[in-house]
Amino acid sequence: MMMMMMKRITQSMTVMWQKGLKKSMPSTSRAVNTLKHNHCYQIRKSPPLVSLDFPDIWTPNSLDYDHSPIQKGSNEQTAAVIDGKSISEEIISGIASEVSRMKESIGKVPGLAVILVGQRRDSQTYVRNKIKACEEAGIKSLMTELPEDCTEDKILSALSSFNENPSIHGILVQLPLPKHLDEEKILNMVSLEKDVDGFNPLNMGNLAMRGREPVFIPCTAKGCIELLLRSGVEIMGKKAVVIGRSNIAGLPTSLLLQRHHATVSILHALSKNPDQITRQADIVVTAVGVPNLVRGHWLKPGAVVIDVGTYPIEDPSSEFGYRLIGDVCYEEALGVASAVTPVPGGVGPMTIAMLLSNTLDSAKRVYDIT
Amino acid sequence: MMMMMMKRITQSMTVMWQKGLKKSMPSTSRAVNTLKHNHCYQIRKSPPLVSLDFPDIWTPNSLDYDHSPIQKGSNEQTAAVIDGKSISEEIISGIASEVSRMKESIGKVPGLAVILVGQRRDSQTYVRNKIKACEEAGIKSLMTELPEDCTEDKILSALSSFNENPSIHGILVQLPLPKHLDEEKILNMVSLEKDVDGFNPLNMGNLAMRGREPVFIPCTAKGCIELLLRSGVEIMGKKAVVIGRSNIAGLPTSLLLQRHHATVSILHALSKNPDQITRQADIVVTAVGVPNLVRGHWLKPGAVVIDVGTYPIEDPSSEFGYRLIGDVCYEEALGVASAVTPVPGGVGPMTIAMLLSNTLDSAKRVYDIT
Repeated sequence: MMMMMMKRITQSMTVMWQKGLKKSMPSTSRAVNTLKHNHCYQIRKSPPLVSLDFPDIWTPNSLDYDHSPIQKGSNEQTAAVIDGKSISEEIISGIASEVSRMKESIGKVPGLAVILVGQRRDSQTYVRNKIKACEEAGIKSLMTELPEDCTEDKILSALSSFNENPSIHGILVQLPLPKHLDEEKILNMVSLEKDVDGFNPLNMGNLAMRGREPVFIPCTAKGCIELLLRSGVEIMGKKAVVIGRSNIAGLPTSLLLQRHHATVSILHALSKNPDQITRQADIVVTAVGVPNLVRGHWLKPGAVVIDVGTYPIEDPSSEFGYRLIGDVCYEEALGVASAVTPVPGGVGPMTIAMLLSNTLDSAKRVYDIT
Repeated sequence: MMMMMMKRITQSMTVMWQKGLKKSMPSTSRAVNTLKHNHCYQIRKSPPLVSLDFPDIWTPNSLDYDHSPIQKGSNEQTAAVIDGKSISEEIISGIASEVSRMKESIGKVPGLAVILVGQRRDSQTYVRNKIKACEEAGIKSLMTELPEDCTEDKILSALSSFNENPSIHGILVQLPLPKHLDEEKILNMVSLEKDVDGFNPLNMGNLAMRGREPVFIPCTAKGCIELLLRSGVEIMGKKAVVIGRSNIAGLPTSLLLQRHHATVSILHALSKNPDQITRQADIVVTAVGVPNLVRGHWLKPGAVVIDVGTYPIEDPSSEFGYRLIGDVCYEEALGVASAVTPVPGGVGPMTIAMLLSNTLDSAKRVYDIT
């Protein structure tokens, strides 16, 4: 069953990869060659950056992707399991205490607004979990659900009312949005002071630049660092590899690890021999959504592995008919690493805890509470 | 003489290193240990990011820094010298043609304003070179020179008048500023549409994030990429190492290399065994200002080396009494690499060419010329 599913994933990915390439892959070497011929007709050779962007699709049909059978429990388990669920519960319980103190002292609580567009099953689950966590922490939550085919104006108008609502301290637009919507435009509309997801480019710039402080650190990145710090993992001076460079996970995590003085390498779908690079890393963070991408032999013995990846697979025995699996071949990693996060129950709940933490911080800023 | 100078550099660096450490180095491991004890009194363990910032000082007294004698011309030269001076002249000549066409068609030329505070000899040279290049390209330049002890208000008022001046399309505050001035506040005052240095965090965020386009790409980073592209060096899929993570050079270069699909690793003063990491790189960009940091054995045979580092050393035979040397042990690199940029005459003139190019782009944007 698992093998069949993997094969299906592989096939659909191979197709996507080829389509992706044909449609939008700008070959640098081709570009260079072309440009050589009209040398004197232009000032610069470097093209607009968005013209270089194309979907980062990992190639399961490449040599880099290991199809050998998974080694289930053949090795002795060396790794501790980093229990993101229990750590996040501890954090949320701390937030609940602060919220309760805030309520007692000034009669206010933090407020989070969530905008969900469309019917994606995974998005619905994520949003449901976020709202549930708000309830646990005593944070007020408002949710606007819009249909798949809703207009940009509808979303902008919902955003605008949340921006102006003084009882809302955090606004979250659940991603991904349906294809017809301009994600950049919509995210840019979220007030910087309420952008608890931290996806505004100004925020990302301040995360990247030394001497600067972002208003909010993107939740997943912050969740990964919290897991490391709370597990007693030293970051400073350590070699860290981040697999994936998405704006919401890989990029901010690589930037945050740098602010914590790790020596960071960033791998993506075009990286050659990624396993050779990960095998040198003390810390591996992976965030691409490709099941079993990171095999046991990709890891240095004793490495710490943080699995941000989520991939939904059908599971009739599960409450909602599916469950999530990560990027890491968990069984193999347990025999090589010193610590591993599971999926689910690793980074996921931490992302939610950090969302609540950012919302609390935002409210404290507004009400001038230190 | 050279050895004495190196010794002096070493001594002063050792002192700086120790001072730097005592004053501002936050030990992550210490922080973690401390935090373990007040576990239940706080929600998060991750501290404000600026509290983690401290000067990135390379340790010439560490094992990483190789003091063995420099191998002068002992190996056969394998490397081509990437002639940044001639490439930049070609670019500036292209800009001059465009400026002249602009003048003919609409009677306007691009305008660049430069603010120079204090008497730093190197800053004066850089500014002089920028103004001279403007003249060559037909770009109007305005310069405001302010004394070392000038107030922030004086600078902000100069900035404000340049922001409002419609004949100015680019504004440049020469860095570093004297210590008493708030660099962040001052740089933030430069209108985003005229920030041709590209140092605004919003710009940096848009440089970092896929799908986004910065208004201006920081000049040094852009200059490095242009050198690579014009030398026919493929970037996509290649392993690139950036040494140094300054906001003005290392950081934007690492981000730009990622947008061009290199697999990027970022080294800094706390990276362990940096030579092991650089030895795997197809492209090495170094930007730290430590003479001879990058020795021949740091390089993979055939690597391409871009030396952004500049360090002024006394040279009575030079026009201004000093000359610049780079981070790379040039003599050794020539025998290992496939291509190397010299200092001076490599990245420096390219940074200036990109400044003019950004200023031209800015004017074209204002006058709606494609």
